[in-house]
Parts: sequence; C-alpha cells; structure tokens
Amino acid sequence: MAKSRFDKLIKNAAGRYVPRVVNGSARIPFKGIDGHRPTGRMASPPVRSYLDYPANGNKVVKSLTEALKKAGLRDGMTISTHHHLRNGDALTNVLFDTIKRMEVKNIRWFPSASFPCHEYLIKYLEDRTIHHIEGSMNGPLGRYASEGKMKGVGILRSHGGRYRAVQDGDVHIDIAVIAAPSADPFGNANGVMGKSACGPLGFALADSEYADRVIVVTDTLVDFPCVPWHIQGNNVDFVVEVPTLGDPEKIVSGTTQLTKSPDRLLIADYVARFVDESGIMKDGFSFQAGAGGINLAFLLYLKEEMKKRGIKARFIRGGSTQYLVEMLEEGLTDFILDGQAFDIEGVRSLYANPRHVNTSPFTSYNPHGKGNFASMIDAVVLGATEVDVNFNANVVTHSDGILLHGIGGWQDCLFGKCVILAIPSFRDRVPIIVDEVTTLCGPGEMIDVVITERGIAINPLRRDLIEKLSRSTLPLRKIEDIQRDVFELCGGEPEKPNVSKENVIAIVDWVDGTVLDSIYPVR
Amino acid sequence: MAKSRFDKLIKNAAGRYVPRVVNGSARIPFKGIDGHRPTGRMASPPVRSYLDYPANGNKVVKSLTEALKKAGLRDGMTISTHHHLRNGDALTNVLFDTIKRMEVKNIRWFPSASFPCHEYLIKYLEDRTIHHIEGSMNGPLGRYASEGKMKGVGILRSHGGRYRAVQDGDVHIDIAVIAAPSADPFGNANGVMGKSACGPLGFALADSEYADRVIVVTDTLVDFPCVPWHIQGNNVDFVVEVPTLGDPEKIVSGTTQLTKSPDRLLIADYVARFVDESGIMKDGFSFQAGAGGINLAFLLYLKEEMKKRGIKARFIRGGSTQYLVEMLEEGLTDFILDGQAFDIEGVRSLYANPRHVNTSPFTSYNPHGKGNFASMIDAVVLGATEVDVNFNANVVTHSDGILLHGIGGWQDCLFGKCVILAIPSFRDRVPIIVDEVTTLCGPGEMIDVVITERGIAINPLRRDLIEKLSRSTLPLRKIEDIQRDVFELCGGEPEKPNVSKENVIAIVDWVDGTVLDSIYPVR
Repeated sequence: MAKSRFDKLIKNAAGRYVPRVVNGSARIPFKGIDGHRPTGRMASPPVRSYLDYPANGNKVVKSLTEALKKAGLRDGMTISTHHHLRNGDALTNVLFDTIKRMEVKNIRWFPSASFPCHEYLIKYLEDRTIHHIEGSMNGPLGRYASEGKMKGVGILRSHGGRYRAVQDGDVHIDIAVIAAPSADPFGNANGVMGKSACGPLGFALADSEYADRVIVVTDTLVDFPCVPWHIQGNNVDFVVEVPTLGDPEKIVSGTTQLTKSPDRLLIADYVARFVDESGIMKDGFSFQAGAGGINLAFLLYLKEEMKKRGIKARFIRGGSTQYLVEMLEEGLTDFILDGQAFDIEGVRSLYANPRHVNTSPFTSYNPHGKGNFASMIDAVVLGATEVDVNFNANVVTHSDGILLHGIGGWQDCLFGKCVILAIPSFRDRVPIIVDEVTTLCGPGEMIDVVITERGIAINPLRRDLIEKLSRSTLPLRKIEDIQRDVFELCGGEPEKPNVSKENVIAIVDWVDGTVLDSIYPVR
Repeated sequence: MAKSRFDKLIKNAAGRYVPRVVNGSARIPFKGIDGHRPTGRMASPPVRSYLDYPANGNKVVKSLTEALKKAGLRDGMTISTHHHLRNGDALTNVLFDTIKRMEVKNIRWFPSASFPCHEYLIKYLEDRTIHHIEGSMNGPLGRYASEGKMKGVGILRSHGGRYRAVQDGDVHIDIAVIAAPSADPFGNANGVMGKSACGPLGFALADSEYADRVIVVTDTLVDFPCVPWHIQGNNVDFVVEVPTLGDPEKIVSGTTQLTKSPDRLLIADYVARFVDESGIMKDGFSFQAGAGGINLAFLLYLKEEMKKRGIKARFIRGGSTQYLVEMLEEGLTDFILDGQAFDIEGVRSLYANPRHVNTSPFTSYNPHGKGNFASMIDAVVLGATEVDVNFNANVVTHSDGILLHGIGGWQDCLFGKCVILAIPSFRDRVPIIVDEVTTLCGPGEMIDVVITERGIAINPLRRDLIEKLSRSTLPLRKIEDIQRDVFELCGGEPEKPNVSKENVIAIVDWVDGTVLDSIYPVR
C-alpha cells in the first residue's frame, strides 16, 4: 500500500483528515451535514430490447459460470452482492470461487455488507481475485483491512448512501449477483418464499435497477409469476438455479434473543421511559428499533406502556422481529415498514400481512430522492461503538482502531426526529464515552440523547428535550459526568489506537457521498 | 396546418407512407416487427436532495395552481396525465382550466389516453393553451384532429410504447400530474382506496419515475404511509388535495355488461372453443381478455369448460372485472396480473387479494426492458376496427378515416403466443374485413386468428394451428371467403375514406418507437 496512492489528506468540515482521491477517483470532503447539494443527473443504464431476451421469458442458464460468461465478466469489473442472507450466505463465497476458476482478477466487490462467513474470501484478496471491497466489512475482513493488507481503499457507506452512490453514478456496477430465496425463470424474485427465505430484498434494489447485467441466483425456482416480486424480472438478465443459497439457521434466527444483562435491561427501561416522558409516545407516533438485546427489551417495555395507556403507533420501522410482529398483530401499530427480517416471524408476517410492508433503501433512506422516510420517524434507537463528549459517534471501529462493523442504516437513521444512542457505558472494561471518537460516523449535532445504565445525557442543542424532561425522575446527567464515573471504574480513558496516519485503509462516506472520516492501518 | 411541417413522406417496411420529421423531431420509419435495435442509454432525471423537500414529509401545497407554479410551469412544456379515471376524469379538465388561468400556452399534453369527457379541452386546443396531444384521442378529440384542426401532429403509442418513449428519453415530461384516489402527504399513492378508487395506477408509473416534477392530486388524503404505494412518494414533488377527482360511476362501472347480441355470443363461443381445441387451454396456461362484451362472454364459456375439465390457469391478465375475480376466487387461476380495473369488483379484489397483482406497462409491455410479460401469454383476445385479408389490423380509425380510438395495450398484446381477433364481420352495415386497412396498427404476421360470427380464419403463417384444428367442427374458412360473404351482405367493400394525403394529422408508432403509419385529415 504505497503512500503515493493518496494526495495528502485534507481537513474536512468535521475537522477530520480525509483523502481527496480514493481508488483513483476524486472525492469531496464532508462539508457539514446539509452542506452538499448535488448537481447532475442520475446514472442511466443502457436501453435494452426484448429482441435480446427469450420470448417465453425463460432466462435460466445452466450455471453461475455460464451466467457470468454471458454477462461479459472480465478483469477489473465491479460485482455487487446483497447481505440479506447475513451470516448464512454461502453464495458469495461460491461466486468468488467461480470467478477465481474463470481466472478473472481485480474485481471491485461491492456488497451491501459482508459478514464473518466471508472470511473465506481473504484468500481472494490475497491473490488479487478481489482488488478491494467497497461495503461494510464486519469482523475478519475488517480486521484484514485494518492490518493494511487490502490492495485498494475500503469505502464504507450507509444503506441510503449506497443506494445514492449507485443512483448518482458514483459506483457503476457491471454485474449484480442477487441471491433470491425464490425466483421465477423470468427473474422476478422475492425473499419471503423458499427454504432460504430472508425477508425483504431491498438492499439489492439499486443493483437490479442500475447494474449493466443482473444475475438472479435462487434455490427455489417457481413458475412465473413469482409474487410478490421484490426484484423485478424486467431488470434481470439471467437466472441460475443452485441447490442452496446458504444456511437457513444463520440467514434468519428462529427467534431473536432478549438480553438478560441487568445493565442492558436498565438501559432499555430508561429508553422506554425517555420516549414516554419526552412526549414522543403518543397516538400515531413512529419509531425504529433494531434487533439488538437492548432494543428488544426496550420494545417490550414500550409495548406494555402502550397497551396500558391505549396508545397506537402509526408505523414501526423494522428490521422486523417477532416482537414487532406481535405489536402489529395486537393492533399496537398500523404498519411495520420493513427493511430486513431478523427472525422467522418477521419473514412470515412480511409474506402474510399486507400491513407489514416491504421497503428499500430507496424509500427509506435515499438522500438524493425527493425526500425519504428517515426524517419522518419520531424516535430511533441506535447503538454505537463509541460516543464522545460532543455526541459524535462511531459505529465502525473500536477504540483500538480496528474496523469491525459496517454502517448499515445507522447514518440514515440519524435524520430521525429524536435520535437515541442506547449503549452500555463500557464494554470489556473499555469506556464507551471518549473525548474524541476514533472514527467519526455520525456528527454530534444529529445525536439527541445518549442513554447508558449510568445515566442519560441529552445533547445541549436539544433544549426542548431538556425542558420537557426537567421534572423527570430519570437520571439525567451531563455526558462528561457519566464519562468521569466510567473512567474511574475502568482506570481511565482508553488508550489511543496505535495507527499509522500515513495511510488510509478505508474511508467513511457521509450519506451525501462526501468523505466524513478516514480509517488508518493498525500497527 | 402547413405542408412544410413535414419532409415528404417515406415508405416504411410495412409499405406505409410516414413522415420523417414529426413535431420537429426526426423519426425512424418502421423497419419490420423486430427490425429496430435501440442504442444509447435511458433518460436520466436530475439528482435531487432531501435538502429541497420537507423533513416531516409533508409535501402538501394549497392548490394545483401553487403546485404548478412551484413546478416551474411555463409555455411549451410537456404535461402528462394518466387515464385510470377513464371517462369519469374531472381532474384533467380542471388542470387545463388552471393552466389557462395561469396564461400558459402551447402545452404538449401527454396523456396515457384521453376520453370523451375531454371534449371540454377542444377550446384549449383552439386557443393554443394546448399545442397538441400525444396520446390516444378517443372520440371527440380524435374527430377534432381528423378534421385537421390540431396544431401539432398527434402521436399514438401503445401502453408499452409510451413507457418506452419516456424511458428512452423520446418524450421528456416536464410536469406529471397524477390523479391519485388515495395519497399521503409524502406523495405515496394508490388507486385502490378512496371514493375515486380506480384500481391500478400503472399508466402513471413512467411519469412518476422520469418527469422533472411530479404533482400528486388526491381527493382522499390519508396519513403516511399510504399502503400500498403504487406511486412512490420518493418520486413526488408536491401533493394537492381536491374535493373530487371525478365521477366514481364513470371511473369504474359498478358492473361490467355482458353482450346479449346473438352474433357476439356466437363469436365468444367460437373463441372459447378455439382456445380449447388448439390445445392452449391446459393446466398452467395463461390468457388475456379485455372488458368488451365478446370478451366477457368468452370468459364465461371458458370458465365453464375449465371447471368441467378441472383445468386451472397460472395467470390471467386483466383489465380486471367481476368475471376474472370470480375465476380467481373459485381457484380457476393462481393469479390475476392486472393493469387496470374495469369494475368495482376488480378494485376490491386488487386491494384485498395478494394473488390479484398490480402491474404496469413496465412489467407487462415495455419493449425496451429485459423482456416483458406480453410474449409469455398463451392466448390474447383482442378487438379491431378493421382487419384486412393479410391479417393486418387497425384499432384507431374507422373505415371512414376518422380517428376515434387509442391503441391501448393492443400492439403490446400482439406479442402473445396466440393472438385472436374476435370481431363481428360487420358493424352498422360496414364490413370489417377489408382489402387493406385504413390505418395499420398491427402487422398481419402477428395476428394468428380472426374469429367472426361467420367463421374463423387462421393466418396461413400458423400452419401449426391449422394442423391442430384440422379435425375441428369449428367453421374454419379462408379470410377472403368470409370477406366475400360480408361484401355480398353489405353491398360491397366500404368506400375508401375521403382523406387528403398531403398532410398527416397523427402517426401510429410501433412499440419500438419507429413510425408504422400515418393518419390523414378527412375532407
């Protein structure tokens, strides 16, 4: 990794140093949350013709190799995949085995996210089958990049930022390979039928719309029409049938786990009470909560309170779980607007209940659409690996500097009306509230409240919330006070990460495509 | 209408004379059904930003005038509307009243179709508020154009051809005005809820995706989210609430009418028997039939036979009616794939039954997608105003040369596997089988069978069908023989239309955007 690949770093509006050129492309440094107004026109795919597709609608080819060949696979192309199969995904590894066998090199892999199961692909980063990854690198691949071993620079984008990058033409996908739990020979596909059912397929939407060639791979081929069609066959070139897409147990868990940790249960209780006492919880409200232990516990607390008081939400944003589904079925919300299903109840409900609605990063998050749903949500409950005393937060690296997580929809959710970080104040004796985050993923002005087991810190910018909670019995504290307690408990601030700032191994994009921060190799 | 507006006409591959320049744009003459392969890239709308849309998702403005003003309405723009409200549409007339009041001129009106209720707009064609119409002109507007009174040249496209023209950038829509029976303040909209419920909204899909500015007008504003969202709010700029979109009685009829004419019942019977004896009617087959009297009667005959023999279709293409809905609900088809609902049962079923599926010209017909559904349908039953002895057919003009109908999905449906024209052999004593069609809308090689009350003519190109029916008791005849009978009955061939071929008042596009035929002013 030669230094010469970068112009020297430049300081952006968040005070972070970022490269001006990344993987050969000029990049705009972050200009402030609302600082960048796009120009130009959207990417425009080539006009196709029915002449080049079978009249009987049968686009099935006999193997992934044949599909890739027909799609014109060659060195240096950009190949995209989605991550709805999560850690149960077997297809992506098979895909790169195939590309390797075809002796094609230097692929830019553009996943919507990668998972620990993709550790298998390190050998293909080593032998340059894959040049670099643009997309989240959870676990082993992140560690590999952090060690400075990846050839190109990783680019981390939010779900909305990824849709935007494709739509705006920042990333041109040559071939999209879409794992489809159910598909018909024409290429219509969904994620709610078949043995590998995973829920929505929205993370692959942009890929299906804008890639030059689209290959749908399924382990459940059904007769036309495959309904619902989350992915539309009219955007698909080839369909490949395989015995299995992966491990259903790891694609969706049978059930999602509640936390048993007393500290986390306490945080969940605080979050629910905060949402209540701040006046957010009222008829017709909306919120988003993920599938982590704190979030699920929060949901249960909230649900009890809503039932007791006869309050109904207008919509809840998924990732769906059995807990959200129960709220829908018990009439505590009119709708679930779902981006991914985390358990089998989520999948079942999405298939069966018209009020459980399939969404995509286009509807939910795309910052360069005519608005999106993210800013309409009353409360979002998020996690973080670090938050600093200025409420800036990090979700991708740990305090040791190692890249271990993707951004997911986290940045997009910061546009919600009340953004709550629900986090333990320390993990493995490492304090979470720091003086300055290792990597900046979310500017502090967008984060309204930090809720820990040791107290709740409201961002001083949110005077309205401070006012509303002024008579609360909740433990409202200054963030610095919580920090001080934890430093005392854990023996001081975490050590600064031992990184080399001469080089950048990955960048964090802001949703608008400007560069928010750099991630450096760990020594 | 000066002759100089055209280059001289040129003979195309169908032997028809067509202009090379239409409304100032160079046009490609028809090159044969599969003769034109497109190049280039799709239209690309400007990149937008959440910065320019309200964070709370509320895009409601107080009037259509304000919406048009904010959308930047000015002289010469292209304004699109859809025709899902059919002859009950009040909005389009109000729209042009508004444009007139705003003193804007020379609008290119780009409807997916116009109806007799739009006769009202003739005054705006007279005073140049509207320069010309590109879209079907049913009834009075067609007659007006036929009289040579419209300033520009009409362009008639099929539903698929219209989607294509927008997608390919042939028609750039400045402002789309979308009548939405139900919408939320963000612009999500559907046609299945509200007092003006009309069924699908697919004819407005291209408009919502590609227009610079999109205005949703609704008489039923619901809280976000409006589910299902046939039109996505992420493509919408402004929402306007009005007291009424039109007359629900004329938007969808309460019930669709069966024919009582013995001749038409006989044709319907022949069609059903033909579909059966040709081997098309078997488990898993598919067909499309419209809402005309012959079609509905055909459905009832077919249904009885399917029930008797235990045969189930995989899908039926709508326009949906109570008759299709009954077949779905009685388990005689797995799916209805619906493009428009003709009666209230169609609307109800589309809303309630997940196997009654909303489609659009993109999924069903777009010839410049990666295939479309049209060519996958086993049998389609269509009408025509004329057919000639070479099986060429006309759906837009009558034998007197007057333009009275649009193309609708008719051309698109010609790609079906077996195309059946089910037509009476004469109407009002005018023979329907002519020596040469007045206007060519569908090349004869795509039309497989002509079924009249006086016999069934199979296109000689379809030797397979002739073979299959060789032992049939159906009245199989040469088309010339049927023609001769009718000529005798009606007193000879219809008079040639009295038109001036010096000028062209409208053209008929082929689905691929080449020019198939010209329509001339009637003297």
